[in-house]
Amino acid sequence: MEYRKIKDEDDDGGTISDDIENPRGKGFPGPGVASVSNVPPREQAKWKRKTIVTLALTFLTSSQAILIVWSKRAGKYEYSVTTANFLVETLKCALSLAALARIWKNEGVTDDNKLSTTLDEVIVYPIPALLYLVKNLLQYYIFAYVDAPGYQILKNLNIISTGVLYRIILKKKLSEIQWAAFILLCAGCTTAQLNSRSDQVLQTPLPGWIMAIVMALLSGFAGVYTEAIIKKRPSRNINVQNFCLYIFGMVFNAVAILVQDFDAVMNKGFFHGYSIITTLMILNHALSGIAVSMVMKYADNIVKVYSTSVAMLLTAVVSVFLFGFNLTLAFFLGATVVSVSVYLHSAGKPQR
Amino acid sequence: MEYRKIKDEDDDGGTISDDIENPRGKGFPGPGVASVSNVPPREQAKWKRKTIVTLALTFLTSSQAILIVWSKRAGKYEYSVTTANFLVETLKCALSLAALARIWKNEGVTDDNKLSTTLDEVIVYPIPALLYLVKNLLQYYIFAYVDAPGYQILKNLNIISTGVLYRIILKKKLSEIQWAAFILLCAGCTTAQLNSRSDQVLQTPLPGWIMAIVMALLSGFAGVYTEAIIKKRPSRNINVQNFCLYIFGMVFNAVAILVQDFDAVMNKGFFHGYSIITTLMILNHALSGIAVSMVMKYADNIVKVYSTSVAMLLTAVVSVFLFGFNLTLAFFLGATVVSVSVYLHSAGKPQR
Repeated sequence: MEYRKIKDEDDDGGTISDDIENPRGKGFPGPGVASVSNVPPREQAKWKRKTIVTLALTFLTSSQAILIVWSKRAGKYEYSVTTANFLVETLKCALSLAALARIWKNEGVTDDNKLSTTLDEVIVYPIPALLYLVKNLLQYYIFAYVDAPGYQILKNLNIISTGVLYRIILKKKLSEIQWAAFILLCAGCTTAQLNSRSDQVLQTPLPGWIMAIVMALLSGFAGVYTEAIIKKRPSRNINVQNFCLYIFGMVFNAVAILVQDFDAVMNKGFFHGYSIITTLMILNHALSGIAVSMVMKYADNIVKVYSTSVAMLLTAVVSVFLFGFNLTLAFFLGATVVSVSVYLHSAGKPQR
Repeated sequence: MEYRKIKDEDDDGGTISDDIENPRGKGFPGPGVASVSNVPPREQAKWKRKTIVTLALTFLTSSQAILIVWSKRAGKYEYSVTTANFLVETLKCALSLAALARIWKNEGVTDDNKLSTTLDEVIVYPIPALLYLVKNLLQYYIFAYVDAPGYQILKNLNIISTGVLYRIILKKKLSEIQWAAFILLCAGCTTAQLNSRSDQVLQTPLPGWIMAIVMALLSGFAGVYTEAIIKKRPSRNINVQNFCLYIFGMVFNAVAILVQDFDAVMNKGFFHGYSIITTLMILNHALSGIAVSMVMKYADNIVKVYSTSVAMLLTAVVSVFLFGFNLTLAFFLGATVVSVSVYLHSAGKPQR
């Protein structure tokens, strides 16, 4: 395993929190943006890039959830989900290639941005896609034990599993305060999602718990493994790395179409049941996927988890205006705990 | 105002957290009790005393809540509450006097433990009792705007008001992490108390919110003021200070009997409706009151708030076994947040 190599180039791991808040931690005295001017220009550029990809991920994730609510309001999914997933992967491949073409034109083809690769480099790329496939298969079985809202709550175990696997596999340290913040993030997100039927989760039978934990581990492992792959070759162009990731996504989803929806596609056509919302969702998923890769490259899984958690809260607030949802007391309490968690993650970063 | 004087003797304010957890903070490396041996004996004795009074308060507060549940199960309050309150104050006076008598016998009468006092010393003692009286009067009016479970939730505002007034009046500093911990304590306690009807609290009309905030400020001010009085004369024996506090409590409660329950007491007798549970509750309230004073003397209001919050959680757990209550998911989430808050309060203490 060559993951330890990552550590060498990754001494900016301590600045994780900068993506979430302005750099107010121990490294940067003085409040807010003003202090950024004390930071060397290279660090500042890195910080800016991290901030942009993180904000993009947050925005895309929250609009994703809003599109899902919108599509549910509009009626049931009429299209086959496998074809949509396939199109998402195809679009991501196309966007990566388009970005590469522009880079080749401007900078020429180099070792870092050429598409040709070695078996040694490419062999690890199918693994995240495979892990997600196994997780998605398990998803069908867990609904025998918990209902959909219960599953939403159990999914917050992802937060803890990501933190633990991030520590074990990537060997990156979080301070004790940051661990406390991570536990709070999980508790806060769960609290914000509480509703009158949430207590049923506690009645989940043991096989349900085991599957939820296994799924959280698979999901966390896929995320952390993707980060490991991408950061293993820091100088390699992210668009090449994305292309390799997504091409396997295309292959696996093509297989899924054949296995699951072959008849439907043959009888009703590939694009049967597509609407404007479907198209927007595919576009959004593709852009979110690319944003996740960017966050893995320029930040890390911890930032990703914070980003998607804050997105969940934003979605709820936006839904109040769009769909007339009511915010619960539990939501306010959960949002408070998540906000404090974001602050603590920033305040508690390890001293260098 | 002479509160600033308190600061001079109170340079042990930074060790607040030691009462709650074993000393694992920055000052004491190494885990658990083993590290206590590195601390000078005087500090160790202080730490031990703080721990004992804090544990006593936690135990008494949680058993108090259990007695209340027990008495409610047994039926409605049949006795007059004012007579019970009067007896609580009387018992506290008697216990303080008994303790003093023993000290006089062993150590002789000194300036610090003599009962005779100056007007200058005694004039501040009725103030906490008066504040509580006003708060209890307001309590009748707030129920026009919120129901009892809603009031329980709004009472958690006490946590924030105590923290703010502790900072302003006693001029003692909490670190940023400790402030974050305090917000979490409030959010965690509220989360733990959530139930299906909690969202009604959000519909509380403005006058209800204002009264809840005023009550929280009165309660917080009474607590912080009591600490100020007790710590103003650090060498003064706590039993003398308690006697002065409680004698005014007796007077105010005697007035309350005359105003509210004079007819009932005259017609049915002073001890009408008393049962074993009533007697136990009076005993418990008296001991809790003394424990609160001790915590004010040897620790502070912050420790008191943590102690009573943890007691609330303990009560819920014990109620599962005693009364077959079910713990909710919200309770587990709230308990997690409170536990992290206790840890952060300890880990985040200001460096000396």
